[in-house]
Amino acid sequence: MFHFSRGIPPQEAIPSRQLAEHTAAVLRDSEDRVFQYAPIGNHTGDAALREQLAAFHSVGAEQIFVTNGSLQALDLLAAHLLAGDRKDVYVEAPTYDRAVQIFERHGGRVSGITLQHDGLDLDALEARLATRVPALVYVIPDFQNPSGVTMSEDKRRRLVQLAETHDFLILEDIPYRELRYGGQAPAGFFELAPAGRVLTTGSLSKILSPGLRVGYVIGAPETLGALAALAEGTYLSPAPLLQAVAAQALAAGLAQENVAGIRELLGPRHDGAVKAVRELLGEDALLAVPHGGYYVSVHLPVATDEATFLKAAAADGLKLTRGSGFYPGDAAPPEGKVFLRLPFQSFEPDEFAAGIERLAAVASKG
Amino acid sequence: MFHFSRGIPPQEAIPSRQLAEHTAAVLRDSEDRVFQYAPIGNHTGDAALREQLAAFHSVGAEQIFVTNGSLQALDLLAAHLLAGDRKDVYVEAPTYDRAVQIFERHGGRVSGITLQHDGLDLDALEARLATRVPALVYVIPDFQNPSGVTMSEDKRRRLVQLAETHDFLILEDIPYRELRYGGQAPAGFFELAPAGRVLTTGSLSKILSPGLRVGYVIGAPETLGALAALAEGTYLSPAPLLQAVAAQALAAGLAQENVAGIRELLGPRHDGAVKAVRELLGEDALLAVPHGGYYVSVHLPVATDEATFLKAAAADGLKLTRGSGFYPGDAAPPEGKVFLRLPFQSFEPDEFAAGIERLAAVASKG
Repeated sequence: MFHFSRGIPPQEAIPSRQLAEHTAAVLRDSEDRVFQYAPIGNHTGDAALREQLAAFHSVGAEQIFVTNGSLQALDLLAAHLLAGDRKDVYVEAPTYDRAVQIFERHGGRVSGITLQHDGLDLDALEARLATRVPALVYVIPDFQNPSGVTMSEDKRRRLVQLAETHDFLILEDIPYRELRYGGQAPAGFFELAPAGRVLTTGSLSKILSPGLRVGYVIGAPETLGALAALAEGTYLSPAPLLQAVAAQALAAGLAQENVAGIRELLGPRHDGAVKAVRELLGEDALLAVPHGGYYVSVHLPVATDEATFLKAAAADGLKLTRGSGFYPGDAAPPEGKVFLRLPFQSFEPDEFAAGIERLAAVASKG
Repeated sequence: MFHFSRGIPPQEAIPSRQLAEHTAAVLRDSEDRVFQYAPIGNHTGDAALREQLAAFHSVGAEQIFVTNGSLQALDLLAAHLLAGDRKDVYVEAPTYDRAVQIFERHGGRVSGITLQHDGLDLDALEARLATRVPALVYVIPDFQNPSGVTMSEDKRRRLVQLAETHDFLILEDIPYRELRYGGQAPAGFFELAPAGRVLTTGSLSKILSPGLRVGYVIGAPETLGALAALAEGTYLSPAPLLQAVAAQALAAGLAQENVAGIRELLGPRHDGAVKAVRELLGEDALLAVPHGGYYVSVHLPVATDEATFLKAAAADGLKLTRGSGFYPGDAAPPEGKVFLRLPFQSFEPDEFAAGIERLAAVASKG
C-alpha cells in the first residue's frame, strides 16, 4: 500500500534524542516551575521562547504569541478577526482544509480564488474586491499545503498593495517556510507589509517536533494581547515544560541544525518526486515545482468521477486524500480532472516513482 | 501583603521530583513517539492515560476524553452543547467566573440560581424550570470554587430527577473532588445519573500538576466522539509527552499518594481557616464549612460599596478577588454584603488568621 496521504514528518526529521536531552536539562533546572501553572496575566507565552522565536524571525519578542500548535492559533485568530461585521474570507483554491473549517466554524463566509503556479490569481482577486472586501485573505505562501506552490515576491508585493488599498488583513501560514531545497526564498509577508496589515502563523512541527505542540502568531502587540486574553479564557496557557524545552532547543541552535538535516534528507526526495511526476504523469499535470516542503500536486485527467477514481486507486494499493476536499465552497478542480496532493517527504525517490507508476496505471485505465 | 486571590496549588502539593523522574522514564521508552504527532483519528486521548483515568473514576476507558486542561474541556463542551436551539445555562450563584464567560462566548444565556450551604436552591431551580428548561445546569458540586460549598447527596439525587423529568443535561466540574479533609463524600453525578444525562469535567491540576495541562471529560462515548472531532479541528491533540507522563504517574499511584499528602498538608490549613473566619468574622458570615478543597468564603456586611471596600482592603495590604465577579448575570450577593472567596491552601493557620484579622479590621472601619 502506498500512503499518499497525511503530511507527517519522517521520524528521521525529528531530533528526538536531542529533544529528550533538552527536556532532561529543563527538568534539572526548573522542575518546580514547569509542573506548576504558568504565571498568570502573561499568557502570550513563555518569555524565553518568545525571545527565541522572535530572534528566529528577526522580529521583536512583543510581536510573538505562543499557542498549542498553529491550528489553535488559526482558531483564535478566526474567533478574533471574524467577530466584526465583515465575514468574508478569501482563500487559495485549493487550500488547507482544516483552515477552511475553522473559518466557517467562526461564522466566516469562505470563498476560493484560483491558485496559479506562482500563487493566488490576483486579477481574479482584484475583480472580487470590486464587489466585496473580505475581513481577511488567508494564504500559505511557501510550499503550500496541499499544492506545493510558492507565491512569487512580485505577487506578494501586489497583494500587500491591494490589502492597503482595500483595507483587509493578510493572514499567512508558514509552517513549511524553512524547508527550502532549492531556489531563492521570497520575502515573508510580515517583512513586506506595514505593521498591523499582516498576521503570520508559524509552527515548530515541521522544523523541530510536532509533539511539542508549539505554534505561534507574529503580529501587532495589540492584536496579540486580544488573542492572549481569548486563549487564557479558553485553555489558560500552553504547557510550561514544552515551551521551556522548545526555548532551550532553539537557543542551542537545534532547529537550524535540524532544518539543515531535513534539507539534505528531503532535497533528493523532492527532486525524485518532481522527476517521477513529470515522466509518468506529464509536465502538464504538475501544478508547480515546489523546491521545498512536503508536497507535489497534480491535476490529473480522469474519465470517471473522483469517488470512483479514488476507489479504483485504493483497490490498486494507493491511499490518496480526496483532492476536492481542499477546494473551499464552490471552487473545484478543472473540469474532467482530479486534484491530487502527493506528499513525498516519506518516500525514497524509487519508492515514490513506483507509487506514481501505479497511479499512472490507474489513471490510464479510466 | 496577604494574597487572598488565585487558587494555585502550593508548591509542596505538586510532586515535581517524581514527575521529572516519570518524564525521564517516558523519554527512555518512547522518545520517538512523544515528539511526533499523536496518531490521527484517535484524538480522544492517549490510550494508556484514558485507561488510567477510567480506573481512577471506576468507569470505562470509552467514557474518557482527554483535553488540554479542564477549561479547554468546558470550552469544547459549551461549543457542542449550545449549538442547538436551547441556549439557557443555569449555574450556581456564585460560580466559577471563567465558566460563565465560556458559556456566554458560545452563545449561552447564563443565569444564576442561589447557592445554599448544601448546594443549589432546588426549589428556585424548579420554579425556573416551569418557565424555561435550559440546555444544561452547570455545577461544581465538591468544595466549590469560589464558595467552598459541597452539594448534599439528597440534592444531587433530586437534581438528577429534575434533569430526567424536564430533560436537561447536568454538567459537573470536579477538579477539587479528591481533596476531602473530613466528612463523607457524596456520590458523584456520573455515578448517580443514567447514561447520557451527565457530563463530568475533571483535571489533574489539583491532584498531580497543573503544568501537565491534563483535563478530561467523563461522558457517553457518542458525545465524546463529537467533542474529539471538534478538538481535532481546533488543536489536533494534546501533547503526547505530557499525556504519557500523566499515564505513567497515575499507573504508579502517584496521584493517590499525592492526594494523601495534600490531605495532610491542607487539612490543618482548612481547619485553621474555618476557625479564623468563625472567630473573627462570625459564624453567620461563613457560607459553609468546606471540609475540602482550597476555599472558604464569606458574605461580609459592609457599609460601603464593593469597589470602595476592596480599595480600603488593598490599602491595608489585603489582595482580594472581586466577589461580585463570581455572580452571573443579574445575580448578586445579599444586599449590604460583599462576597469574598478566601483561598486557604497556601497559608499556615496563623498566617491565615492574621490576614482575616486584618480583613475584620477593614470591615469594621467601613
